[in-house]
Order: sequence, then structure tokens, then C-alpha cells
Amino acid sequence: MSSIHFADRLINACRTKGAPVCVGLDPVFARLPKQVRDDAGQDAVEAIRVFCAQVISVMAPHVPCVKIQSACFERYHWRGVSVYYELVQIAASAGLIVIADAKRGDIGVSSGHYADGHMSDPHTRDMPVGADAMTINGYLGIDAIQPFIDTAARANKGLFVLVRTSNPGSDAIQSLTLEDGRTVADAMAKTVADAGTADGLVGQSGFSCLGAVVGATKPADMARLRDLMPQQIFLVPGVGAQGASANDARACFRDDGTGAIINSSRGVIYAYEKHDTQDWRGSIEQAAVELKEQIASVVC
Amino acid sequence: MSSIHFADRLINACRTKGAPVCVGLDPVFARLPKQVRDDAGQDAVEAIRVFCAQVISVMAPHVPCVKIQSACFERYHWRGVSVYYELVQIAASAGLIVIADAKRGDIGVSSGHYADGHMSDPHTRDMPVGADAMTINGYLGIDAIQPFIDTAARANKGLFVLVRTSNPGSDAIQSLTLEDGRTVADAMAKTVADAGTADGLVGQSGFSCLGAVVGATKPADMARLRDLMPQQIFLVPGVGAQGASANDARACFRDDGTGAIINSSRGVIYAYEKHDTQDWRGSIEQAAVELKEQIASVVC
Repeated sequence: MSSIHFADRLINACRTKGAPVCVGLDPVFARLPKQVRDDAGQDAVEAIRVFCAQVISVMAPHVPCVKIQSACFERYHWRGVSVYYELVQIAASAGLIVIADAKRGDIGVSSGHYADGHMSDPHTRDMPVGADAMTINGYLGIDAIQPFIDTAARANKGLFVLVRTSNPGSDAIQSLTLEDGRTVADAMAKTVADAGTADGLVGQSGFSCLGAVVGATKPADMARLRDLMPQQIFLVPGVGAQGASANDARACFRDDGTGAIINSSRGVIYAYEKHDTQDWRGSIEQAAVELKEQIASVVC
Repeated sequence: MSSIHFADRLINACRTKGAPVCVGLDPVFARLPKQVRDDAGQDAVEAIRVFCAQVISVMAPHVPCVKIQSACFERYHWRGVSVYYELVQIAASAGLIVIADAKRGDIGVSSGHYADGHMSDPHTRDMPVGADAMTINGYLGIDAIQPFIDTAARANKGLFVLVRTSNPGSDAIQSLTLEDGRTVADAMAKTVADAGTADGLVGQSGFSCLGAVVGATKPADMARLRDLMPQQIFLVPGVGAQGASANDARACFRDDGTGAIINSSRGVIYAYEKHDTQDWRGSIEQAAVELKEQIASVVC
């Protein structure tokens, strides 16, 4: 277990690697390089395992953080979940900060189980390494979030609550206007900001272990959410395949260039589809470096 | 794969068994009967597996439906997930309708993975049986729900979207008042009602395969949500350990006594804590029968 607060670890890692970026692993068998699929005998789980391990290996020298999409592994039941945990271990060993993109949320006692399953570190021989942080869904309210906070505080882990998501349909609920003029996303932001300032949750960097997901595809909201959540680190999806540019994400950062980490998933891990399918590792590495340079030019 | 629409199957099963009730499996190792823990050599996953299989066996003659809480199994990583799928199979073989209480929700492509992982039926030898239905979280909007609907429609499965949850803290977001006077939960209800009437989603019973979670602990909202979602089957938690009575849940039903299924989890599966720890199976069976009789007296 790390002895350093999650936010401090994340910010240090971004500084060391040169930019606040995260590569998302959302592996889909049909899109993997033909060579990888063939070498795995068309076994989807094995192909995904090999592919993701290679992606981690080529990006680890360049970026501070990896986000692993749990859905891509759960699709293959317990065998997929086993590979998911193997990849968390591989990524952690490669020095990356690992975010479990699991978007969990339930009534209190069940949220506690999810937190333990996804973020706890080994205390018996057969336990896997847990992720450094996970994404959670706050629609059920603060008592559904609190067990995740308790686990995170105890183990120096982090959380990112879904506040304003990057998908086109997210406006339907998140942009609804309340009677006091705020949006639903603003109310969620206030909940997160308030909960995140409790005793022991804020690191030396001034940031809380309770962060927020804010999509780069929602430029009208980013600056306001930044003001509403001054101590939250934003995990920012939407750059790349979802259409937002590095520049669009600028408003997620504080003036000093801290406070957000920009994620790109498909734009990086499938870079070989546009470039060189033979040297797919090289294409992915190049895309990770380009992502880093783009973000560095905007915020550093 | 069933050739009968999910809502029709569920309603038929409730009629056959005598009441619209569901027993929730939320197994926690520390609360299992000592005998079960000892026989499993204190192995939590094995103890949970044996306990849940026994609970399914004793309740299957009495109730139509079981809800399995994914968090309790994910807590034990892939080994827990493997047991989760084994229990889905055991429950389906015992003639129960199985609801995966997974509360998933993500952007479109990832929701599709979750739907496939949790609800698809075997088409290769090593694939597990999928649940008949699952709970989902709609905070991300309709494009996050649609892939679940597509899978459900294709395979005659069902969904329950979290609209008004039973936990005390759920008011913080779900009860916020919008500028038009509705609550956030009302807006979620409208989204569900509209999406649920699309071509092919409504069964012969008049109910949609897209249902809603509405907690029995929120009596002020139930009747209004019933009006807003006339074609949705409500999955109703909150009766029993969470404090609501069978009578509290009456407003979740239509006047003809259809339209909802009442869940009790801890009140049934831990019934032996109050009664007979030696004959824990008997205590659980008795609690399942009592739950059924209580609900039948209110709605039938």
C-alpha cells in the first residue's frame, strides 16, 4: 500500500512523465491487430491479454496513468475479470497509476464490497493488486459514495465521480435545470466538492482523493465545474475518438496547469488502424507520445 | 434463449408462484451460519457458494424470482465472479427468474459489453448462462441505456433502470426539483417510460421489458412514478431490513395488482439470526413464505 496520498502521487507522476495524460484500455477483440488475434488462436481473452500487456509496455515510459475499462473484460465473464486483474498488476509493476473504469455505485453496504473488490491491496497470497483509483456513479447519493471514500482514505486510493460525462446523450439528465438555476451536474459537483474536503481527504497538493469525471466534449460546462470543484482532480474523457481536441480540455485545468488528467482511449490504442498495422506497437507508442505532447503544449 | 417476452414471463411466474416477490442474495461471509463457514474451512467464496445454492433450493418452490447482488461476488475478484455465474445457472435450473443486480451504466460501446457479459446466453460450450434481467444506472442518459435495451430486446431479457432508490441518501440527487416542478427522478422516469414503448419492447401483458427500480422507502413518490411509468414493471427494494412494510409498497402496483415485484434480501436470507441458527434452511424457507404471504395479502 502506498504511503503517499493519491492526488499527490498522481500529480507527481504527471510532472515526472511530462504531462497529465492517461491512456484508456478499451480492448475489443475484432479491432485488435490480425497478428495478435491469429497468434492467440482467435481466443478473444488471450488476444486481449497479450495486446493490453504490450500496450502497457510501450506507453509506460511516456505517460503517467492508464485507465482500464472493466466492461471490456466483464464481457468475458470470470476469465475476462481474471485478465483484468492481471493487467492491473502489470500496469502497476510498470510504474503506472491505474484507474479502474468501473462506474460502480450501489447502496452503502454493496458499495463497500465494490470498493474492496476493486481497490484493496493484497493481504493474502491469492489476492490480486487493486487499482489506484476507480470511477463511481453518484446517482444514488452520498451514502452510496461514502464507502468508496472510506476505502480510498484508508488505502491512499482515489475516486472519480461521474459528474458530466462525455457521451452525447448525457445532457438528458445531467443538463436539466433545477429550480435554483443550477444543473443536475452542478448539484452533483457540489456533493463531490463538499464530501471531498472532509478531514484527511486532501493531500499536500491541495487536491482531494475524491475527483470528478468531466467530459472534454462539454466545453460550456467545464469552467463552471472547475469553479464548483476547486479541490477535485478532473478525469477528462472525450479527447480523440469522441471528438474533443486538447485545446477543448484547457478549461478543466486550474490556471497553474494542474487539476486535470486527460484521457484518450481508442485514439491511442487503435492508432495502427490509421498508420502501420505491421508495426502496431510503434504506432501506439507514437500516438501516446503525440497525446502527451499535445496536452503538454496546452497546459505546461 | 426464451421465446417469451421478459415481462410476460415475469408476470406468469408471479401468478404461478402466488405473489410478485423476489428474494435478494446479498451474501456476506461473516453473517453466514457458523456451520457453513466451518464446513467451507473458512473459505469465504466456497461458503458463499454453498450457502446461496441452499437458499436458492429452499426458496425456489415458493417465490418466482431471485436477485443476485454482483458486488458481494466481485469483492472476491474473478473467483467470486465465477461463483456468481454458477449461481445464475443453479437459479435458472431451479425455475427462478434471475435478476443481476449490477447497476451498470457507461457510454454506449461499454454498456454493450456489460449487457453481453451479464445477459447473453451460451452460444459456445464454455459460456455461462446469463441472467434474465439486470439493473442499470441511467445517469449517463439514453445512449448509455440503449445498448442494454438492444440486447434485452434481442434475447427476451429485461432491465430495471434506477429511478428512485431505497437508500436514505438518494434524495440528494433524485429529489432535486427542476425548474418545471418535476424531480430528477421524475425526469428519469419519463426517459424510461418513453424508451420503453419502442417497437417490440412491450409484451402481451402490456408491460415493457424496460422496467424501473423504485424503493418502497419513498412512499411520497411511488404513486406519481406509477402514473409516469404505466408500462414499467417496478422492482421494489426496501421492504424488510431497510424498513418499509409490505403495505408501504402497495402504491407501486397498478390497481389490478400487477406492475411490481417486491424484493427482500437481508430480511429473508439472514432470517436464522432471529430464529433458528441450527435449522437455518428452515428459517430462510419460512421467511420466504412469510414474505410471499405478506405481499399476496396486500396485492392479490
